[in-house]
Amino acid sequence: MTNRKRMMKLAAFSHPPGVHRAGWRHPEAAADGDTDFSVYAHLAQTAERGKMDAVFFQDSAAVSNCTAILNGNRARGQMPLAVNLEPASVLPALAVLTKNIGLISTATTTYNEPYHVARRFATIDHISGGRAGWNLVTSQVEDESWNFGLEKHVEHALRYERATEFYDIVVGLWDSWDADGLCRDKEAGLYFDIDKVHFLNHRGKHFNVRGPLNIPRTPQGRPVVAQAGSSDAGRELAAKSAEVIFTAQSVMEESRAFMADVKGRADRYDRGPDDIKILPGILPMVGRTDTEAQDKYEELQSLITDDMCRMALQRHTGGVDLSKYPLDGPLPELLPSNAAKARQQILIEMGRKGMTIRQIGRFFCGSAGHNVMIGSPKTIADRLEYWFHNEAADGFTVMFPYMPGSVTDWVDMVIPELQRRGLFRTEYEGRTLRDNLDLKVPESRYARVGKAAAAE
Amino acid sequence: MTNRKRMMKLAAFSHPPGVHRAGWRHPEAAADGDTDFSVYAHLAQTAERGKMDAVFFQDSAAVSNCTAILNGNRARGQMPLAVNLEPASVLPALAVLTKNIGLISTATTTYNEPYHVARRFATIDHISGGRAGWNLVTSQVEDESWNFGLEKHVEHALRYERATEFYDIVVGLWDSWDADGLCRDKEAGLYFDIDKVHFLNHRGKHFNVRGPLNIPRTPQGRPVVAQAGSSDAGRELAAKSAEVIFTAQSVMEESRAFMADVKGRADRYDRGPDDIKILPGILPMVGRTDTEAQDKYEELQSLITDDMCRMALQRHTGGVDLSKYPLDGPLPELLPSNAAKARQQILIEMGRKGMTIRQIGRFFCGSAGHNVMIGSPKTIADRLEYWFHNEAADGFTVMFPYMPGSVTDWVDMVIPELQRRGLFRTEYEGRTLRDNLDLKVPESRYARVGKAAAAE
Repeated sequence: MTNRKRMMKLAAFSHPPGVHRAGWRHPEAAADGDTDFSVYAHLAQTAERGKMDAVFFQDSAAVSNCTAILNGNRARGQMPLAVNLEPASVLPALAVLTKNIGLISTATTTYNEPYHVARRFATIDHISGGRAGWNLVTSQVEDESWNFGLEKHVEHALRYERATEFYDIVVGLWDSWDADGLCRDKEAGLYFDIDKVHFLNHRGKHFNVRGPLNIPRTPQGRPVVAQAGSSDAGRELAAKSAEVIFTAQSVMEESRAFMADVKGRADRYDRGPDDIKILPGILPMVGRTDTEAQDKYEELQSLITDDMCRMALQRHTGGVDLSKYPLDGPLPELLPSNAAKARQQILIEMGRKGMTIRQIGRFFCGSAGHNVMIGSPKTIADRLEYWFHNEAADGFTVMFPYMPGSVTDWVDMVIPELQRRGLFRTEYEGRTLRDNLDLKVPESRYARVGKAAAAE
Repeated sequence: MTNRKRMMKLAAFSHPPGVHRAGWRHPEAAADGDTDFSVYAHLAQTAERGKMDAVFFQDSAAVSNCTAILNGNRARGQMPLAVNLEPASVLPALAVLTKNIGLISTATTTYNEPYHVARRFATIDHISGGRAGWNLVTSQVEDESWNFGLEKHVEHALRYERATEFYDIVVGLWDSWDADGLCRDKEAGLYFDIDKVHFLNHRGKHFNVRGPLNIPRTPQGRPVVAQAGSSDAGRELAAKSAEVIFTAQSVMEESRAFMADVKGRADRYDRGPDDIKILPGILPMVGRTDTEAQDKYEELQSLITDDMCRMALQRHTGGVDLSKYPLDGPLPELLPSNAAKARQQILIEMGRKGMTIRQIGRFFCGSAGHNVMIGSPKTIADRLEYWFHNEAADGFTVMFPYMPGSVTDWVDMVIPELQRRGLFRTEYEGRTLRDNLDLKVPESRYARVGKAAAAE
């Protein structure tokens, strides 16, 4: 952390064609944005025009909820979010079309190999000149397991154990080469310096990886590591590993508590509170006035179908089939979920408050469980400022109800208001994602070892 | 195959900073081209200026030959080809910088999951508008195994068995969605058509994969599949799966025999000889005159060090440590190799002819086992024409001794000569790689099933 004035960090979260489940039905939405690269490109270029820190793509290696299709539920044809471009393959293309914005993508630790993940994100860091970020997740969607040879999804605790080991290997591999390890001395015929390449020789419960990585140290030292877990195991891993955290808190006091908890845990890992930037998700619905914004929101809500309602909740029920319950009746008792535990909890609490399946479903369709903010630029900026000044956020992950319209609304209306208030940059501070997020360049583990030896 | 006149297909093979082992030492070489994206971009853009069919990147998920480093052989610091950008992550970036040229990258079947590979290349096909190709290989480099938890490299036959199953799954996943499966009907709220999405439900010896792929049918129907195997198992897999074959034949009669053999086997898989384009590798050293070309070659050869000689052969010795033998003595008896068998055979035959380790090593440093062609544009075009007209090649995989100079030489000197002779296109025929290679768009397996049912 430098001595710069504390400013909001803003990431543009994208899941084209939009996060609102009915967003693709909006008359101006690019309904095929999920596989139309130009929609991804528009997002990144517009977010960069708004000086945002990064674009961030979630991922899942499966068609979500497709068990319903297998069960012959034909109404499921109404479900969006079935397809999308593989995001880590989109980032290099975006790198060429942008200059400053960070490029973050999810890659699961549950069904990948650490050597592959280390290579891919190191490559993106090189291509982008230091703008890559890896969002480390454990797979939450049961559908994924069937695409990778498993009968059953990996159990929550085991996933986190594997994820922790996976992280250690990836960052270890990123230290394979000292910054000056590849000397390429034409005169001497010396391509690399043998004293500056390091074998990881990792042997653990889930992986054995020798190394070294066949990619030299990256422009950022190493790519930025992001995370999204909010369970206890997720928080612990975040405290150890995350430099950016995407969260789903929608209540200010809860987000404050979350921040204090995670940043408090960081000390155990020799890290400080400023080494972690926490960016709760928000879903802004922006209008020139509060009324216009509300009208826009209602227009989207009117596009939600009954099937969307059920589907939005189905993955959080722990297997209870909601199609057997009336939409206007109460939420049935759910079974413990092996998927995203925090999200299920939100749903259960809404049920306890007496909301019907339809009401909860409509809320989830519109919010994806995140913090919906409907209003004028001033109204939204007021709320963001309140969170930011009360240590409930280091910034925000901005989700877009539909694309490309919501992206342009955000960048052209809300960002100028935040800039006017001095809450957000008007120009990029640095060249790398790490620079702009005000994060340290991590020292190589081998440099640390060398220093320790020299001090003796 | 359309009725177009038969023309050469030309792929630009790249392993920046060049295929000649000492190429990086050339005064004009971009020695850091292996991790400098601009060198990759220059290759693709220059090859596209020359109307070449594709750029093609090999890959290995390891620092090659690094066992020697572990053994403390410090001279190995002189070895290039230690690092490179992960090529399937480079293709999307190149897609944005080019319009017509095909983009082919290697991804191993030995240490990957088919669902990931299917997704990545489908994504590249979407981003590039139909220009993606997957080079299906089995891993040959023992060093890779240690990065993926294995003590020992997977045995040759088992690798091919796994590769064959892997291929079946990947092409099966690419058929997950009919071309009109995603209807995105805003009015009806119908995102996709449930009758047009297909579950693979693959259960095999090496993999269980349910599907469907979460990416719709790609612009090319599916990405082009390339291959490079030349062993018996490799040829059989190529006959079944390959649409493009990169080979290492350097004797015209042998290449003729190879072509006849592989294209002859295709019939077993309901494929025709024109469904496979065979592109032997050539390493051109071009000068304005034959003498100038020879001088340029000698200049590169003079940059080869003793260590490069040994290292060029070391991976083909089956474990015999060449550092124990005098460079100017005969090649010792080698042990059977679990790596690239065909390459080892070339080496053994040279030894039988009485060549010393240094002589064989210098040849391998300069050729990588491929067909070196030294001469003026006319000399080189004469040889290519001879091969092409004698059914020894459908075209060529052009390898570059160093970069970027050799790429420009090829495109500015040899390609115009081929065009003058009517052997090579002066404008791209189509929009996709498949179009330009004159390859059929494969029908979906489900369309075939549908037709068969309708015919009954």
